Amino acid sequence: MTQAKGRIICAGLGPGDPELISVKADRAIRGARHVAYFRKAGRQGQARRIVQGMLAEGVTEYPMEYPVTTELPFDSPEYNALLAAFYDQWATRLADLAQDHEVVVLCEGDPFFYGSFMHLYIRLRGRAPVEVIPGIPGMAGCWNVTGQPVTWGDDVLSVVMGTLSEPDLIRHMRGSDALVVMKTGRNLPKIRRALAAAGRLDQAWLIERGTMPGERVVRLAEIEAGDCPYFAIVLIHGQGRRPVSMPEAAE
Amino acid sequence: MTQAKGRIICAGLGPGDPELISVKADRAIRGARHVAYFRKAGRQGQARRIVQGMLAEGVTEYPMEYPVTTELPFDSPEYNALLAAFYDQWATRLADLAQDHEVVVLCEGDPFFYGSFMHLYIRLRGRAPVEVIPGIPGMAGCWNVTGQPVTWGDDVLSVVMGTLSEPDLIRHMRGSDALVVMKTGRNLPKIRRALAAAGRLDQAWLIERGTMPGERVVRLAEIEAGDCPYFAIVLIHGQGRRPVSMPEAAE
Ligand SMILES: C[S@@+](CC[C@H](N)C(=O)[O-])C[C@H]1O[C@@H](n2cnc3c(N)ncnc32)[C@H](O)[C@@H]1O
Ligand SMILES: C[S@@+](CC[C@H](N)C(=O)[O-])C[C@H]1O[C@@H](n2cnc3c(N)ncnc32)[C@H](O)[C@@H]1O
Repeated sequence: MTQAKGRIICAGLGPGDPELISVKADRAIRGARHVAYFRKAGRQGQARRIVQGMLAEGVTEYPMEYPVTTELPFDSPEYNALLAAFYDQWATRLADLAQDHEVVVLCEGDPFFYGSFMHLYIRLRGRAPVEVIPGIPGMAGCWNVTGQPVTWGDDVLSVVMGTLSEPDLIRHMRGSDALVVMKTGRNLPKIRRALAAAGRLDQAWLIERGTMPGERVVRLAEIEAGDCPYFAIVLIHGQGRRPVSMPEAAE
Repeated sequence: MTQAKGRIICAGLGPGDPELISVKADRAIRGARHVAYFRKAGRQGQARRIVQGMLAEGVTEYPMEYPVTTELPFDSPEYNALLAAFYDQWATRLADLAQDHEVVVLCEGDPFFYGSFMHLYIRLRGRAPVEVIPGIPGMAGCWNVTGQPVTWGDDVLSVVMGTLSEPDLIRHMRGSDALVVMKTGRNLPKIRRALAAAGRLDQAWLIERGTMPGERVVRLAEIEAGDCPYFAIVLIHGQGRRPVSMPEAAE
């Protein structure tokens, strides 16, 4: 690694409410002179929205806009190649910047938990010092707003992506106590079918934009399952595998 | 519910580093005049240790000490009855206090994620207003200190307790990509055997006291598996079910 004078700090933003950012990330964001974040072209971007009012005057912003194309399907090898080139370019640009400056990259939730930042992170290895500040994962904000513990006792929690195949979804829905399905969006009808097949639809909650403006918490069985926003999860609470858990060797 | 003038705030403390407490919980803790926390008799308690130096002068502390007995095994019905009475008493005491005062209850990690607070929470329903402030779960602090993303792409993450039976552990270890085993402690030898049986021992990390003083991060295969501290998890990182994930409809 070259002797960089600067570095990259990836700050986990938590579920959406700026009050849920850690003290450490809050300080890094407010003190930043260079701030980068992903967004869809033409949008403000959730990450940027969360820090609204927190950025210092005179900060330089680097919106990293996902490549758009009407020609290529999102799951084609061509689109993936385009996306890889996009990450390559931004990794190079941030590594250059970090030679002399401290750059704060914003990341919703916890960066190491299904975060897009990891595509930069693996490309930055050996090119610039990188520090990652953890954040409250979006799902923790979501179960918090349901007002019920998600797991207790010996409950098993499985976290699955709505992009999985229907049989895979069904298998994991059957095999766990508590359940989180992320990347719901247009996968919601499939997720709903899988929950019904696994006999668990009645237990499922849909949380849209947990702790964000426009938050919505509903029982999945009680709504029409069309699309839902990108920031949405389906949640099943565990019932606790034992009624009272042992304190064990709690320190 | 009686018209309480006070309320109970359960503040998630995150994994251990006080800098990782949320801005909201940090403010609640620093401003508190009444602070309660669980601990083992004769210990300071992790929750109390994390907020060392943050409490206001003149604060009243309520250490809730788990009942001790040398007569009863921890998993006996008699001990569970003792524990239930202990939670009952503290729920009543906190509900009384909350009629006139704001009481902050400290909870490691995220309160709704396998937190002991839920045993008070279910008993406080309808007796006092309760607000829960989420925190970074201990496991997120742990995967952060390994310096590697825990999940990406379509990875499935399963969270299991080391208290499960060996066959149950093996089944979940086989069925997931990324894995977290909590409540390791004296279950470590069993967890290690299960990992070996599932063919995943080589991928496993042991993180003791992640982000706390005395933190230790090792490959599980490289150490003797005797006991480990109560604050320890076993972790397997997912490898990403697709090399490059789609931005989908990221807002
Ligand atoms: C690419 S993943 C990023 C996860 C993020 N790193 C985290 O720790 O939450 C995006 C998915 O997270 C979930 N998500 C994150 N924050 C959310 C929130 N506040 N409300 C609902 N879902 C959320 C949604 O399922 C969304 O599709
Ligand atoms: C009763 S559970 C409480 C979990 C807590 N509510 C949370 O969100 O992390 C206690 C278990 O959490 C895990 N744990 C919590 N914080 C940890 C840390 N900083 N390092 C290692 N393990 C931790 C350990 O496995 C421990 O046995």
